Amino acid sequence: MNLKPLGDRVIVKALEQKDEVKKSGIIIPDTAKEKPQEGEIVAAGKGKTDDSGKLIPMEVKVGDKILYGKYSGTEVKINDVEYLIMHQDDILAIKG
Amino acid sequence: MNLKPLGDRVIVKALEQKDEVKKSGIIIPDTAKEKPQEGEIVAAGKGKTDDSGKLIPMEVKVGDKILYGKYSGTEVKINDVEYLIMHQDDILAIKG
Amino acid sequence: MNLKPLGDRVIVKALEQKDEVKKSGIIIPDTAKEKPQEGEIVAAGKGKTDDSGKLIPMEVKVGDKILYGKYSGTEVKINDVEYLIMHQDDILAIKG
Amino acid sequence: MNLKPLGDRVIVKALEQKDEVKKSGIIIPDTAKEKPQEGEIVAAGKGKTDDSGKLIPMEVKVGDKILYGKYSGTEVKINDVEYLIMHQDDILAIKG
Amino acid sequence: MNLKPLGDRVIVKALEQKDEVKKSGIIIPDTAKEKPQEGEIVAAGKGKTDDSGKLIPMEVKVGDKILYGKYSGTEVKINDVEYLIMHQDDILAIKG
Amino acid sequence: MNLKPLGDRVIVKALEQKDEVKKSGIIIPDTAKEKPQEGEIVAAGKGKTDDSGKLIPMEVKVGDKILYGKYSGTEVKINDVEYLIMHQDDILAIKG
Amino acid sequence: MNLKPLGDRVIVKALEQKDEVKKSGIIIPDTAKEKPQEGEIVAAGKGKTDDSGKLIPMEVKVGDKILYGKYSGTEVKINDVEYLIMHQDDILAIKG
Repeated sequence: MNLKPLGDRVIVKALEQKDEVKKSGIIIPDTAKEKPQEGEIVAAGKGKTDDSGKLIPMEVKVGDKILYGKYSGTEVKINDVEYLIMHQDDILAIKG
Repeated sequence: MNLKPLGDRVIVKALEQKDEVKKSGIIIPDTAKEKPQEGEIVAAGKGKTDDSGKLIPMEVKVGDKILYGKYSGTEVKINDVEYLIMHQDDILAIKG
Repeated sequence: MNLKPLGDRVIVKALEQKDEVKKSGIIIPDTAKEKPQEGEIVAAGKGKTDDSGKLIPMEVKVGDKILYGKYSGTEVKINDVEYLIMHQDDILAIKG
Repeated sequence: MNLKPLGDRVIVKALEQKDEVKKSGIIIPDTAKEKPQEGEIVAAGKGKTDDSGKLIPMEVKVGDKILYGKYSGTEVKINDVEYLIMHQDDILAIKG
Repeated sequence: MNLKPLGDRVIVKALEQKDEVKKSGIIIPDTAKEKPQEGEIVAAGKGKTDDSGKLIPMEVKVGDKILYGKYSGTEVKINDVEYLIMHQDDILAIKG
Repeated sequence: MNLKPLGDRVIVKALEQKDEVKKSGIIIPDTAKEKPQEGEIVAAGKGKTDDSGKLIPMEVKVGDKILYGKYSGTEVKINDVEYLIMHQDDILAIKG
Repeated sequence: MNLKPLGDRVIVKALEQKDEVKKSGIIIPDTAKEKPQEGEIVAAGKGKTDDSGKLIPMEVKVGDKILYGKYSGTEVKINDVEYLIMHQDDILAIKG
């Protein structure tokens, strides 16, 4: 990925079974949408600068599978793929 | 549990008698719902970073039975079980 | 009491003449409700952590009779008794 | 007064000519209410704790006549007398 | 003036041509009200205490002619004269 | 100019072609109003005091041509000329 | 560009295919507007001053291609070209 997030932001690829749904043309009902908010970090910033100008390093890194709050982050489309750019503080937990 | 909460977050399993209710198919009336907001911590983050970049350790740990404010936290479903991810500051008290 | 409040929280037992009212079945009119917001601290946290990670000790302790703001705190029911969990900052004054 | 305000709070007795009004049973019109917001401090806390845990001593003391903003403070009734508990920051000026 | 403002507050006498208007009984139209928000400082506090408990001295002093934002401050009436008590931060500029 | 702005405030003379418009009596349509928000600094404060009581000097000075956000600042009229008093933080950029 | 942004602000030229659209007079439908929020930094401030008066240098520089949040920044028109002035914190990521 050729995008470097600023500050304590990360770029997240949401883990959804979208593609398979599209191939068959069948729309999977609501239950399939019940475990969203999972994603993988594809890019991470260097961290936030604290009040005294010191860099606070990131708790997460590229490759981490994460849970994040619904409505978190800003959607961006890169090469027709949708990503979310969010602050590390919007990440609830790391999986694995 | 294979989830590591970020910052000062904890993952909480709410203590409710839901399962037994489902087995008999009988819906227990309002009074049964009167002591919610109790839960057990199943995972805990490392703590919050203060303004000068220093880690403030957690006051709670895995296994603690807690009381928390109604509407606190974000609901997540892991292997069909519902959990709440909340900040330590949403915890009102530790039991026992 | 087997509850340990977190941070600078306290658990408060409101001082009301409720029981006597219930025995006779007579509902005491509005005037009886005019001096609420008094209570006794039955449990207290260790204190709040300041911005530099240092613990600020509590000004109040278990047994203190206090005045607190109407609508302060979160109601919890323990063994059928109602308590309020509130931050020390919601306490207006100590009696006696 | 057997009440000790918490933090930087003070207890204030509002200076109004209420009593004389009551004796004659005559309600003094609006003009009599034009200089409210004056009071006397009857009890004062030890001060506010700053961000680094240090106590900032009070600028006011018991006996000070003060001006305070309308709607400032919380009303409390002690032995049938009404008082206001407010933060020192709600005090506009000291008289005399 | 026998009033000592608290913290970084000042007491301001608004500069308006009110008196002359009253003498003739003629109400000067809106245009006369177009340059309000000018006043003179008649009393000043010692200054605000910063986050580390240190006093930040005042930038203004008694006698300063000032401009202040419309709706700034709290109106008080002392010996039938109206004053404004406002924070130094509500002062836009000093004249002269 | 005999006005000294307080803190990190500046006094700004908006750069508009008002006068020429007035002479001919022709009202220039909307397009003429499309590049407002330009002004010149005619007076500047000493700077803002930071949280530890230290003065942060100004980035701008008298004579600077600036761009500022629409609705920024407070309008004041001095000798029938309109000025804006705004915080330095309301200045977007310096020209030239 | 003869504009120097203040503090941690940057001036951004939005990357849109506007010109080509105008030449043919054909309005490209919604899909063409789906990847906005990309821009190039044409000017950058020196950085933000932290709470202790120290300058925090910029993470971005002139020439950086960036992604930014929709509705970020203030629109300004310089020599008939539209730019956005925004805080560095409104920048989501740097490309390339």
